[in-house]
Amino acid sequence: MSYTLINDSLYGFVQITDPLIKSVIDHPYFQRLRRLKQMGMADLVFPGANHSRLQHSIGSLYLAQKAIKTFERKKIALTQGEQQGLQLAALLHDIGHGPFSHSSEQLFIENTKHETITLKIVERLNLEFEGKLDIAMAILKGDHPKKFLIQLVEGQIDLDRLDYLNRDSYFTGVSRVNFDVDRIIEMLDVKENTLVYDFKSLHTLEKFLFDRRFMTLQVYGHKNNLLADLLLKKIWERFKQVKVDSKFPLPNISFWLGLINKNDGSEISQQEVDAFLALDDSDVIQLLKYGKNHGDKTLQFLCNSLLNRNFPRIQISCSKSFDSKVNKLIRQLPSWQQNPKISEYFVFAGSAKSLTYSSKKDSVMVKLKNDDPKPLHELAEFLISPYFSEEHHVYYLCYPK
Amino acid sequence: MSYTLINDSLYGFVQITDPLIKSVIDHPYFQRLRRLKQMGMADLVFPGANHSRLQHSIGSLYLAQKAIKTFERKKIALTQGEQQGLQLAALLHDIGHGPFSHSSEQLFIENTKHETITLKIVERLNLEFEGKLDIAMAILKGDHPKKFLIQLVEGQIDLDRLDYLNRDSYFTGVSRVNFDVDRIIEMLDVKENTLVYDFKSLHTLEKFLFDRRFMTLQVYGHKNNLLADLLLKKIWERFKQVKVDSKFPLPNISFWLGLINKNDGSEISQQEVDAFLALDDSDVIQLLKYGKNHGDKTLQFLCNSLLNRNFPRIQISCSKSFDSKVNKLIRQLPSWQQNPKISEYFVFAGSAKSLTYSSKKDSVMVKLKNDDPKPLHELAEFLISPYFSEEHHVYYLCYPK
Amino acid sequence: MSYTLINDSLYGFVQITDPLIKSVIDHPYFQRLRRLKQMGMADLVFPGANHSRLQHSIGSLYLAQKAIKTFERKKIALTQGEQQGLQLAALLHDIGHGPFSHSSEQLFIENTKHETITLKIVERLNLEFEGKLDIAMAILKGDHPKKFLIQLVEGQIDLDRLDYLNRDSYFTGVSRVNFDVDRIIEMLDVKENTLVYDFKSLHTLEKFLFDRRFMTLQVYGHKNNLLADLLLKKIWERFKQVKVDSKFPLPNISFWLGLINKNDGSEISQQEVDAFLALDDSDVIQLLKYGKNHGDKTLQFLCNSLLNRNFPRIQISCSKSFDSKVNKLIRQLPSWQQNPKISEYFVFAGSAKSLTYSSKKDSVMVKLKNDDPKPLHELAEFLISPYFSEEHHVYYLCYPK
Amino acid sequence: MSYTLINDSLYGFVQITDPLIKSVIDHPYFQRLRRLKQMGMADLVFPGANHSRLQHSIGSLYLAQKAIKTFERKKIALTQGEQQGLQLAALLHDIGHGPFSHSSEQLFIENTKHETITLKIVERLNLEFEGKLDIAMAILKGDHPKKFLIQLVEGQIDLDRLDYLNRDSYFTGVSRVNFDVDRIIEMLDVKENTLVYDFKSLHTLEKFLFDRRFMTLQVYGHKNNLLADLLLKKIWERFKQVKVDSKFPLPNISFWLGLINKNDGSEISQQEVDAFLALDDSDVIQLLKYGKNHGDKTLQFLCNSLLNRNFPRIQISCSKSFDSKVNKLIRQLPSWQQNPKISEYFVFAGSAKSLTYSSKKDSVMVKLKNDDPKPLHELAEFLISPYFSEEHHVYYLCYPK
Repeated sequence: MSYTLINDSLYGFVQITDPLIKSVIDHPYFQRLRRLKQMGMADLVFPGANHSRLQHSIGSLYLAQKAIKTFERKKIALTQGEQQGLQLAALLHDIGHGPFSHSSEQLFIENTKHETITLKIVERLNLEFEGKLDIAMAILKGDHPKKFLIQLVEGQIDLDRLDYLNRDSYFTGVSRVNFDVDRIIEMLDVKENTLVYDFKSLHTLEKFLFDRRFMTLQVYGHKNNLLADLLLKKIWERFKQVKVDSKFPLPNISFWLGLINKNDGSEISQQEVDAFLALDDSDVIQLLKYGKNHGDKTLQFLCNSLLNRNFPRIQISCSKSFDSKVNKLIRQLPSWQQNPKISEYFVFAGSAKSLTYSSKKDSVMVKLKNDDPKPLHELAEFLISPYFSEEHHVYYLCYPK
Repeated sequence: MSYTLINDSLYGFVQITDPLIKSVIDHPYFQRLRRLKQMGMADLVFPGANHSRLQHSIGSLYLAQKAIKTFERKKIALTQGEQQGLQLAALLHDIGHGPFSHSSEQLFIENTKHETITLKIVERLNLEFEGKLDIAMAILKGDHPKKFLIQLVEGQIDLDRLDYLNRDSYFTGVSRVNFDVDRIIEMLDVKENTLVYDFKSLHTLEKFLFDRRFMTLQVYGHKNNLLADLLLKKIWERFKQVKVDSKFPLPNISFWLGLINKNDGSEISQQEVDAFLALDDSDVIQLLKYGKNHGDKTLQFLCNSLLNRNFPRIQISCSKSFDSKVNKLIRQLPSWQQNPKISEYFVFAGSAKSLTYSSKKDSVMVKLKNDDPKPLHELAEFLISPYFSEEHHVYYLCYPK
Repeated sequence: MSYTLINDSLYGFVQITDPLIKSVIDHPYFQRLRRLKQMGMADLVFPGANHSRLQHSIGSLYLAQKAIKTFERKKIALTQGEQQGLQLAALLHDIGHGPFSHSSEQLFIENTKHETITLKIVERLNLEFEGKLDIAMAILKGDHPKKFLIQLVEGQIDLDRLDYLNRDSYFTGVSRVNFDVDRIIEMLDVKENTLVYDFKSLHTLEKFLFDRRFMTLQVYGHKNNLLADLLLKKIWERFKQVKVDSKFPLPNISFWLGLINKNDGSEISQQEVDAFLALDDSDVIQLLKYGKNHGDKTLQFLCNSLLNRNFPRIQISCSKSFDSKVNKLIRQLPSWQQNPKISEYFVFAGSAKSLTYSSKKDSVMVKLKNDDPKPLHELAEFLISPYFSEEHHVYYLCYPK
Repeated sequence: MSYTLINDSLYGFVQITDPLIKSVIDHPYFQRLRRLKQMGMADLVFPGANHSRLQHSIGSLYLAQKAIKTFERKKIALTQGEQQGLQLAALLHDIGHGPFSHSSEQLFIENTKHETITLKIVERLNLEFEGKLDIAMAILKGDHPKKFLIQLVEGQIDLDRLDYLNRDSYFTGVSRVNFDVDRIIEMLDVKENTLVYDFKSLHTLEKFLFDRRFMTLQVYGHKNNLLADLLLKKIWERFKQVKVDSKFPLPNISFWLGLINKNDGSEISQQEVDAFLALDDSDVIQLLKYGKNHGDKTLQFLCNSLLNRNFPRIQISCSKSFDSKVNKLIRQLPSWQQNPKISEYFVFAGSAKSLTYSSKKDSVMVKLKNDDPKPLHELAEFLISPYFSEEHHVYYLCYPK
């Protein structure tokens, strides 16, 4: 008997006994996740945030395995195929991410979220594996008749979030290990085809949501983290604007710079999927290093800022937009930067938003002692306070030091 | 009053109050360490091993700060300048590393260890900072009159090792947190200008050395880790052999491929230092991605192996060389690979070595209860058993699956 | 130079360099804390909850030392005496606890909180140490002119809570390590004699309060934890009722059983302080072991329940009292238990309450970016939702299996 | 379906699904382990060492459950009964411990190790449970035909040690978490009815043994830990000497003080088992508190020393006995203490020993790559250096401050 053990920093050994799962992990499409940072550019703010999307995907697989054991113990029948499908869905749910994960989302393939690209790639893998990923595909698409499997992979409390919250906190060193993932997985249950959590886990679920909000405000939404992402977007815009000529040395990148703007939201072509699968973090780093020495002074400035963590200033407010301050700041720029096509790279304002918990859709269901399911936000009333249930807006203003 | 807090995954906040140290950290030469993995290619075996050389350097700075506090408590006088110098030496001791740290050591600048390159780079920084790094420089060169400062930065138990052992174990998830770094730092003392450790730390020092040996055998010397490094070396050799033409798209790399072989051990030129400082992990990843699609089938094979973790076989022995088996294995290769200039990329044998503790030089000194210093290996006799005090050899044999 | 290192499970070494502090730690009154469990009877529910009040007190001292370093860095002047006083106040703030800490609060000395007894004991120590505890005493009494020192020792976020939340979570194993105590201590500041926290710590403070609420609901208020405390109270009541005769073998206990009920709230006598200082957990365990074999069947039942974790049933509700169900349950008891003087030991209902954060008094103050202080609940509005800012009531009902 | 979850500080949830195992845990004999400290008097030196023998027993059960899963994966057949038996044997292997575990070993029942008492108690439980503990009993007795089950419960690397090393290090805070227990359990295998470890675990096994030696020297054998145990023995001897009269208030203790010396090694009577099962830590604490106020000044001195951590001096040597120094020190005592019957309580010398690994018996077997088993000490040669394979002697000398 042969099986593989993968060393995970959080969970110890992750065991892979299923040859199909092993083959999917070994596939270059999956191995590529090794070269994508899970937290994007966040290592510029939290130097420990260097973990890869591959680590998170293996972690999600591990939690799927634990969930299957809970289901077994609670006599919730799953076929072999469904068990395999759930594991594969967890493993592959993020395969559609590009360089630096969320930091480049919608940069390369515009108007397209990573979930859509995931489906495209899994489709392709499914062809290669001759349909063996059908069930995983159905779960990822939201088509599978066992709705609770879908909810486990894509919900407000799902394997994805259960893994990444602890993992991101472990690697950034911010408030190591928050909630108790073991307890939540242990409390999983199914009631009328719906995923429910045992009443005993109520406070742990609350804590999970609070910790998620904490990580959102303290880490993911850290102003310098936001700034790094904004700089990357500005750099990309500027590269598209200055155009690249035939001497541009980065073939993986030039494909995308040459692409016609995709605001029409048309279907992703196979050529785009190919080009996307060729990308990883190193392409973006190369772009920054190239831009730092580019003839365009705006690119120089932006790329040096991001590459060497030589950040411009950023101001943050939760209450009011900075739009009115932009013009005044532009007038303080050196004259060459005051050109309207240039100034937007040096002074810019805008807003970002986040949401901890929606009580409007996909409620997390808690199984009461009498076995009836009830939405979490009816039990943990604080969730319907605006603090949690409404989108949290942050207004920002960036300008040179 | 203003000071900077850096989030460290292991130590929490690292405080930077000295403006000079802050400026050095902000320098692009130092920021470049962010883009070098501390453990080289080891993430192919331990997926958590993605931490950067910058993290380790900041960690070493932190331990230097703790050591300074111990010295204060024990009334060991250090001037402000020496305190600053020690911190800077700890911070910069690894600045001479290249892409993937040890994995590429001696690949770009041949016959030259990273310590030599470190001195070159610190020299340059010292010019830029107008001599303010003199003391740090003296410590790193081994010139400073307070010998114990040198020993703290470069010894058999030093700040470097105290940081990286715990750090590597935290990120790989192998046997998290081993010895007690706080206790060791607390037990530091100085006796006749020599670094000594209080007798009470004897068992902790022993444990440190044992844990170091464990990490060497289990992690650093893991056969697949060794294999990844060997593959990188083979790829580099092959690239040098096939030559690159004017279309080669990676300017940071082509400089080095064009360089005349430096077996003469001549001085490093400023041009080389420049080119070296331009390198980071992304250049090597780009090289692998380029090689994977190269016309040369040998390069294709090797780069695909390393990039997609599609490893050839490796056998390991502690007792005997595999040299005699090479020829037979070559004869089993496809005919085009049997060409002597080609076969060495598919079948190769060799050896690697490691040493836990040398009782011959730079002994770690322990201060007995009567205040006399004594070499550690005379107190912990097991250190002179061959297991610890002699070089540990590993013989390897690699061949295709 | 000589100093003491104490091994702490959470913080590593705690250093004691001040001889007075060392002497206080060595005093039998303080050493007695070693024999009081920090979390009372909670080990019956969380088997890891065996840590002592001494550990928590040493931990509070350690955090006081860290706070002093933050004050130094921020140029907040403290005299040597104030530094010593703050450390002593943190060290001694809980010396008035009795057996099993909160589980026996108001059992021995009725109508008297442990804080009052703390003052009595510190007064006595101060006499013995010839007035050297004057400043500590002033801080504990709330008399010291530097108000922020008082707030650090007794506030809604204070050294006490900063230590015990993490500690209790470490030992129970429930959601190990929650918030980031280092960050909070680092963010301490003083503004117009008032303790304030830097704005940057806002989310960490929120998280601290949420985690405190979580520990309250999930751990401290766990229904079986509540039950254990209730059983202890019932046992004590019953012992008082059945009276003890001259053969009662536990002299430390019999003093208290013989005491006239102290509902008048009169002053604590020195004799009571003596008798209180003679008590520790072992006296209560002995009482349970004695009661288990006592002729009174009620005592037998109760003591066996608690000692052997052979718990009666407990029901919990957050919304409504169970008072109306008591009589029916009593009628189902065996006839000898239906005696009104007996039945109350077998069937009983009541309520308990907890409060996470009061926005009405002693607000935690946050220092805005413009340096103005603002109450935490105005920044973190969720704190004024009833969930956090109102007392949380739990109604319980206990009856035999 | 109903099952119990126990919160463990190290492992999270331990699941109890087997009703028999649940009943054994609920039995007063087992619950008594809650009132015995795992590490004896060690909390006087390591204040965190308050964890109970119950915690360790539950932890051993958990590791037995993990081992069973490894066996399943490796197709090593175990009947339901054997699975249950292994779990029960792990759970009960230490039930024969008395107050403060090893600290009182051979104090109450002389010349009798706790393993012998364990068998006595399990025999009794087996009667009560009508033979359902037969298999557990056979494993504990060393009678079971599946030898590897016996080796797992009682060997040089067994479930007991795998649990307590990590646990003791977690609670003392000394070098938290050492070796990788998951890896060792994962590498378990069986070859010809013998427990073997896969070759891949070689370095982890070595590390385990080294860490065990470290804990032995640094923690278990800490001179003050040794001193506390010696004081307890002296106190017991002195109580036996001064005799206790009818007024002695501690019935659980007086039984033992009245007992005729058992040097004959005769069988343990049921009455002794009863009396032994009535004991827990609180009885010893009561004895110390009683002795502290006893008329005998020697008892006063000793009990105060131990209770209030007011230790006499202890000197330690690894090389030579202190016997020759005793007389001189006695002559420096106050005259009343120079009485030969008294002086031995104030000045005493002796030796203690420990052994890390015996290569002579019960070798740990490692399964080579060719499947052949080989003794660990032939692979890890350092184990046969005297440092590991010979008994480590420590000589001590105690005398008043």
